[in-house]
Amino acid sequence: MEFDLTGRIILSGDASNAIKDIQKFIANANEELLKKGGIDGGSKIEKWRIDGDKIFLHIKSGRKVRAHEGLLRIKKAMGKLLGEKYHIGIREIKIDDYLINFEIDREPIKKIEIPFASLSIDGKKVTMHLANIDEEFLMKNYVDRMINLVNKKVNAQYYEGKEEFWELIWRSEKKEPIWKKDPSEEMAKLGWIKHGPTKGKWFYRSPATAIMRAMEEIALNEVLKPLGFEEIIEPVHVPFELWLKTGHLEGIPGEVYYVSEPLTRDVEKWEDLIDLVKIKKEVPINLLEKKLSRPKAGMCYAQCPIIYWSFMGKTIADKSLPILVFDKTAISNRYESGGRHGIERTDEFHRIEPVYIGKKEQIMEIKEKLLERYKRVFEEIMELEWRMAWVTPFYMQQAGEIEEEKGEGKEKGTIDFEAWLPYRGDRENSKWLELHNLSIMGNRYTKAFNIKGQKREKELWSGCSGIGLERWTAAFLAQKGMDPSRWPDEFKKYLPKLPKITKFM
Amino acid sequence: MEFDLTGRIILSGDASNAIKDIQKFIANANEELLKKGGIDGGSKIEKWRIDGDKIFLHIKSGRKVRAHEGLLRIKKAMGKLLGEKYHIGIREIKIDDYLINFEIDREPIKKIEIPFASLSIDGKKVTMHLANIDEEFLMKNYVDRMINLVNKKVNAQYYEGKEEFWELIWRSEKKEPIWKKDPSEEMAKLGWIKHGPTKGKWFYRSPATAIMRAMEEIALNEVLKPLGFEEIIEPVHVPFELWLKTGHLEGIPGEVYYVSEPLTRDVEKWEDLIDLVKIKKEVPINLLEKKLSRPKAGMCYAQCPIIYWSFMGKTIADKSLPILVFDKTAISNRYESGGRHGIERTDEFHRIEPVYIGKKEQIMEIKEKLLERYKRVFEEIMELEWRMAWVTPFYMQQAGEIEEEKGEGKEKGTIDFEAWLPYRGDRENSKWLELHNLSIMGNRYTKAFNIKGQKREKELWSGCSGIGLERWTAAFLAQKGMDPSRWPDEFKKYLPKLPKITKFM
Repeated sequence: MEFDLTGRIILSGDASNAIKDIQKFIANANEELLKKGGIDGGSKIEKWRIDGDKIFLHIKSGRKVRAHEGLLRIKKAMGKLLGEKYHIGIREIKIDDYLINFEIDREPIKKIEIPFASLSIDGKKVTMHLANIDEEFLMKNYVDRMINLVNKKVNAQYYEGKEEFWELIWRSEKKEPIWKKDPSEEMAKLGWIKHGPTKGKWFYRSPATAIMRAMEEIALNEVLKPLGFEEIIEPVHVPFELWLKTGHLEGIPGEVYYVSEPLTRDVEKWEDLIDLVKIKKEVPINLLEKKLSRPKAGMCYAQCPIIYWSFMGKTIADKSLPILVFDKTAISNRYESGGRHGIERTDEFHRIEPVYIGKKEQIMEIKEKLLERYKRVFEEIMELEWRMAWVTPFYMQQAGEIEEEKGEGKEKGTIDFEAWLPYRGDRENSKWLELHNLSIMGNRYTKAFNIKGQKREKELWSGCSGIGLERWTAAFLAQKGMDPSRWPDEFKKYLPKLPKITKFM
Repeated sequence: MEFDLTGRIILSGDASNAIKDIQKFIANANEELLKKGGIDGGSKIEKWRIDGDKIFLHIKSGRKVRAHEGLLRIKKAMGKLLGEKYHIGIREIKIDDYLINFEIDREPIKKIEIPFASLSIDGKKVTMHLANIDEEFLMKNYVDRMINLVNKKVNAQYYEGKEEFWELIWRSEKKEPIWKKDPSEEMAKLGWIKHGPTKGKWFYRSPATAIMRAMEEIALNEVLKPLGFEEIIEPVHVPFELWLKTGHLEGIPGEVYYVSEPLTRDVEKWEDLIDLVKIKKEVPINLLEKKLSRPKAGMCYAQCPIIYWSFMGKTIADKSLPILVFDKTAISNRYESGGRHGIERTDEFHRIEPVYIGKKEQIMEIKEKLLERYKRVFEEIMELEWRMAWVTPFYMQQAGEIEEEKGEGKEKGTIDFEAWLPYRGDRENSKWLELHNLSIMGNRYTKAFNIKGQKREKELWSGCSGIGLERWTAAFLAQKGMDPSRWPDEFKKYLPKLPKITKFM
């Protein structure tokens, strides 16, 4: 890694008088200030000159005490020198050119670009060129993240078009389905569901609602309550700051429904808009937009981020571990666009999301217990044909990361529970439906939200599992049909019969 | 009412040749075309002249066949005449000046303004002056709505600062409260609730959640299920078109949380934003806004509009009446701004909203049954000090209307259920909390959504009742305290004890 910086220090007055002191300062700086903490020589001022109120500098460095860090050190120390002896202050520092040479893991397959810099790449050798940058840019650590981003983008090229990581863990016996129809289509025909008034969202009439509620009861009574999970209720709006912590805004910003609030609730300030609505019976969008805040939050995408947030900065008492909570209230919204299909892939869905936080061994124990109970649900209550597989962890997908975590065996990661949808094709060649997942996140989120245990074993692990009521319903109906008399006995205990539907003429 | 219009018909060519025919046409029009359907003489062309490809007109009228309607009739008939005989078409019509004189119900207290027109008002006499308006404006009936708006705005001045309509129906016996503390404050101290990551929204930890769920169970088991209400699940986004029908956008546009969706979900189109988030760890709002749709929907404000929408245009079979459904899934959001307080007035709350649609007598019967069951809940289960009152109907409030409906006695309207909050002051002088309401809407919404019954009695009535879980919880805790051992026995059957709270160090 080589850093090669050409820049200026702009002073509050002419410093020509101080040239001797500056000369001495720079010689010293090259020996001490710029070497401190350096590993391959630190930073070095290669050339400099003074021109009235400007000091021009050319600084080179290796990868520790990088040239821009060196410049920040010089600014601070020189400011002290010139201030005390000459009453000259430092106005600002400017970097005219900054060349950074570094190696990346793999050769790019095609051209890449990043903001704020031009790149030239030869094999694995990258030259990143930044021009006209200011101090804030350096202080905020953008340079390191840019180097990182180049590497990540090249690595991503190797994954493009590849199948996601998927490794079978277990599969159930084959089970003959009752039919091969698409349950969403059939439910829509019977009026059990109706497409909502906005894209990709459903209105569930009473029979479909009854099935979804049966799924909820099964999840609560067969899985969560027996394991000691307790319900919490979280808000449905997620501020950007929170998603910056979890990485969602780096991963799925194109799938979020964004929320704006009124700038004011004062009725007088809305009178002009209200008058126009009353006269035109339409919404004056230009005027409306002027009355709204810029987006600063989105609708819930998954429930776990706010649950983690609720424990942010806390040290959890040993006796309260493991924390076992779930939310079933926040509605999830995802802009699915072309990917929408029936109730199994919609823009609005209803999930129960348990989150577990505890010592590593507690988390591993919870995982086994959850697996066992989910298995009973799919095997004995729903009698599904289903399977489990290791997949790319959802939290990496949602943060826009791609490689599976390596090294720590299979303790951390995501297990997908999948069911065969006979309407999609035969069991071997069709795409199965993800019913829900179960994730062990290690310390990823406890670290991001600074959630700690007591004394000795401070580090806590966590995990979560998103149970989609629509997904359970879609898979069950796709295999077992819509006639309650043909449903498995254990399921019928939860829903012996369906409510009648309103009759239209 | 007098309408006085000066305008032009602009032709595709010089019509000087046709002057004789036009003369004849206008004489005839004044006798027939412009009188048809008129009550006080219809419209009359007072003056006219032709100047090449323009015909200038001065039209006056009373309140039936108003001058602009007359102009539209002339355009059509004259277009036919000139087209057939002279091959001249009509390009457009322009109104240079339009003076409308009308009387309003009351004299304005202070100046009023409306869009698109200047007003001069003398006592109850209004002159509304419109200039430079085009055909679309006339066609779309804006003029009538403007006249209406003037009247409404003046009437509204008489209600400003006045108390809302409120008339006591019934009040319970006095009951001594356990304490006089604000339960939200106390819950926050104990960690039962925590302010959410965005304004005015709460995170409910397990004890608070358990109380809210007990309230839900009481509403379901004591009120809704015994009366035969069935659950539906509705989406949480409401498109503007729907709120234009219900009037919400005329009433409460400043209280709505607005939603925007991505213009595309294509990851490549989001790469620049994702790069910036990765480098800067902040959201580039300008760039984000360019990638979002303009707002076209809001978050649920009350659940009933989408329930009505789900039956839009339907004729309901007699045997399916009354329709008795409820939603408990869609979360309600309201921008409360300065009005926020504790869990009883928040930007996000959880309601169960039953809607009933049926013949008038069915609706009146349901109303009585609901009243009886609500009474049991507050009297026997929660043992509250509470009361019922007729108030300004919620659907008029939400549509920005103000006068109570008159004439039809008390069949239609809204009953508020209110509870004393001892922490706000003594029972006689403090403001009580609206626990929920019960409304009979007559045919207001069934008409707006074109929901009909079979043959003979086509007209259906409807009503709804928004049960706020936060409100029930706040009132109960404010009177009965937070110690379950001191709660009423009937309530304890629903919630004998509270879950333990996580302990933080």
